[in-house]
Amino acid sequence: MSSLAKSELQEIRDAVDIELGTFLKAQSDFLDSISSDLKPVSQALSSFVLDSGKRLRPLFAYTGFFSTGDDISAPIIKAAASLELLQACALIHDDLMDGSDTRRGKPSIHRHFESIHVQDELEGFAPAYGLAAAVLLGDLALVWSNQMLNESGLSSQQVRDVLPIHDEMRVELMAGQFLDIHEQTQKNTNLDRSIKIARYKSGKYTIERPLHIGAALSGKKSSELMSTLSGYGLPLGEAFQYRDDLLGVFGDSSVTGKPTGDDLREGKRTVLIALTDARSTDAMRETSRKYFGAPDLDDKGVSILQDMIVTSGAKDALEIMIDNLTNESLNAIEAPEINDKGRSLLTELAKIATKRNT
Amino acid sequence: MSSLAKSELQEIRDAVDIELGTFLKAQSDFLDSISSDLKPVSQALSSFVLDSGKRLRPLFAYTGFFSTGDDISAPIIKAAASLELLQACALIHDDLMDGSDTRRGKPSIHRHFESIHVQDELEGFAPAYGLAAAVLLGDLALVWSNQMLNESGLSSQQVRDVLPIHDEMRVELMAGQFLDIHEQTQKNTNLDRSIKIARYKSGKYTIERPLHIGAALSGKKSSELMSTLSGYGLPLGEAFQYRDDLLGVFGDSSVTGKPTGDDLREGKRTVLIALTDARSTDAMRETSRKYFGAPDLDDKGVSILQDMIVTSGAKDALEIMIDNLTNESLNAIEAPEINDKGRSLLTELAKIATKRNT
Repeated sequence: MSSLAKSELQEIRDAVDIELGTFLKAQSDFLDSISSDLKPVSQALSSFVLDSGKRLRPLFAYTGFFSTGDDISAPIIKAAASLELLQACALIHDDLMDGSDTRRGKPSIHRHFESIHVQDELEGFAPAYGLAAAVLLGDLALVWSNQMLNESGLSSQQVRDVLPIHDEMRVELMAGQFLDIHEQTQKNTNLDRSIKIARYKSGKYTIERPLHIGAALSGKKSSELMSTLSGYGLPLGEAFQYRDDLLGVFGDSSVTGKPTGDDLREGKRTVLIALTDARSTDAMRETSRKYFGAPDLDDKGVSILQDMIVTSGAKDALEIMIDNLTNESLNAIEAPEINDKGRSLLTELAKIATKRNT
Repeated sequence: MSSLAKSELQEIRDAVDIELGTFLKAQSDFLDSISSDLKPVSQALSSFVLDSGKRLRPLFAYTGFFSTGDDISAPIIKAAASLELLQACALIHDDLMDGSDTRRGKPSIHRHFESIHVQDELEGFAPAYGLAAAVLLGDLALVWSNQMLNESGLSSQQVRDVLPIHDEMRVELMAGQFLDIHEQTQKNTNLDRSIKIARYKSGKYTIERPLHIGAALSGKKSSELMSTLSGYGLPLGEAFQYRDDLLGVFGDSSVTGKPTGDDLREGKRTVLIALTDARSTDAMRETSRKYFGAPDLDDKGVSILQDMIVTSGAKDALEIMIDNLTNESLNAIEAPEINDKGRSLLTELAKIATKRNT
C-alpha cells in the first residue's frame, strides 16, 4: 500500500511539474513580448519554481480532492499546482526579510539579482537592486499563482466553492508571517506564541487549507469531511514546522541547501528555542545571548548552541511532540469520511512531512 | 455638464470609500481573531487606504462600466473599490524599493514600523523590522484586493469576463515596476525605454485596464468599445505619469505629501530626465552627475537641477507632450460607442489625471 501511494504521489508530482512548466513558459513569453529586459525575471522565477521543491501543497490539495473518491482531471492538477507559485512568493519574500543568502542550495533571489548587478556593472547600489527585484518577483509569483488558478478551467461552481478558502489561506499565511517576524522582536521567548505561529504558518497554510481546497473542488465537501481534514492537517502541519525548525538547527547543509545552523545565526525564535529557553539555567541563557542571532556566528558557535539545545532536553522533547502530533493526525483519518486509498496517501504524506531531511 | 460629472464622480468616490471601510473593518476583525499582535497591521493598512487617495482606478473602472449605459450596483462599486487595495500594495512596495520616507504626508509603511520598533524598544534591528512589515503589508493588500473582488457579489459570467483582464493588468503592473527599477541601473537615459515604462506603469495599469475591467463587467464589451477605451486610456495614462514626474520634481511638498525634489534625490530616470539629458551640454551633464541621485541632495541642489530642467526646455516639452496626449485621448472618445454621459465623465477624469497638483 505504502509503495503504491508513493508511486501515485510521484505521478502527481510529475503532472504538477508539467503544468507548472507549461504555465511558466507561456508567462515568460508574455513578459518577453513586453521587453527583453524582463528575461532575468522570467528565468529566475522559472528556475526557482521548476528546479526543486517538494510540491507538498499541491500534493495535499490533490489528496484532499482524491479522498472524496473522485477522478482527477487537468483542471484539478492545475489548481493544485498553482499553490506552488504562492509558495514561491512566500519563500522569496521570506528570504529577503530574513536576509538569507541561500535557498535550495542556490543564491536566494535578492542575492541572485545583487550578483547580476555586480556582474553587469550596473549603476547604483547592488543590494537595493536585489531588494527591489525580490519584492517584485515575489509579487509576480503571487499574481501568477492566482492567474494559474483562474485559468485552470474549473467550473463556476468550483470557483465559487474554492475562492473563499483560498483567500482565507492567503490571509492566514501573511498573518502567520507577520507574527513570526514580530516574535523575533520580543524580549522573551514564549512557547504559546511560537506554537500559534507554527499553526498559522504551517498547520493551516501548508496542510489544512490545501486539503480543504482539494475537498472543496470535489463538490462533495461535508462539514464532517472538512473537520476530519482539519483534525489531520493542523497537528501534522505543526509537526511539519517543528521538523523544519530542527533542520534549521541540525540539518545537513548539503541536503537542506541552507548553511548548517542558519536559524541560529538569524536568531529565529522557534518552538525549539522556546523549549530550550524554558529548560535553561541562567548561565546557559547568558551563553545563548552571546551566540544566538549573531550574524557572524561561526561553526564553533553553532556547535555550542546545538549542544545546549540537546543537553537541555529540548531536542528530545520536540521529537516527542512531533511523534504525538503525527499520531494525532493519523488517528483523525481513521474516520469513515476518508476512503482507503485516501488514507494510504495521507499516511504517506505524513511520513514525507515529518521524516524528511530536507 | 462638467459640474454634474464632478458631483457624480464625488458620489462614486464616497461610495467606494464606504465599501473600503466596511471591507477593512471586517478584515481587521478577522486579524484580531487570530492575534492582538496583528493590530498594528490592520491599523496601518486601514489608515493608509482610508485617510487619503484619489480613487482614480475605481473611478476609471466605474466609468468604463457606466459608459455602456448600465445602472450601477453594489457589486460593481465593490469590484471597482478593490483596485484601491491593489494600488496600496503597489505604493507600499514602491516606497520600500525607492527608500522613500513619506507617502501622502505621513511616514511610509516601512518607516512607520521602524518607528514602532524604536518606540516600543523592540529587540533587533529597526530597519529590518520596517522592511519585513512593508513586504508583508503590501502582500496582504494584494491578497485583500483580490478577496474584495472575489466577495463583491459579481455573477459567474462577470467573474469569467473580468478575471483575465484583471490578471493581465497585475502582471503588467509588476513588469512595469521591474522595468522602472531596472532603468535606474542603466548607464544612460533612453527616451523610448522611459516612455515604455510610463505606458506599462500608468497607461495600462492606471487607466486602460480599469476602464476595460468596468466595460467587461457590463457584459456589453465589444471590440470597438475596448479599443476606443484603449485609445483614450493609453495616451491619458502616459500624460498622467508625466504629470506625476513633473510633480516629483517641481511639486509643492505641502500639497503632494512628498518632499520637494524627491525624485531628483532618488535619481529617478523618468521621461522628464531623459528629455533634459538629450537637451544638455556636456557641462550640464557633469553638473547633473554631481547632484542627480545624491541621497543628501539639499534645497540648493534641488534648485540647480530644477533650473537645468527648465532652461534645457525639457519641462516645456513635457507639458506639450501632456497636452498632445490629453487631446489624443479626448479625440478617441468622440467615437459613437461612448454615450454622452460617459464622455462627460471621461472628460472630467482626464482633467483630474493631468491638471492636478497632488
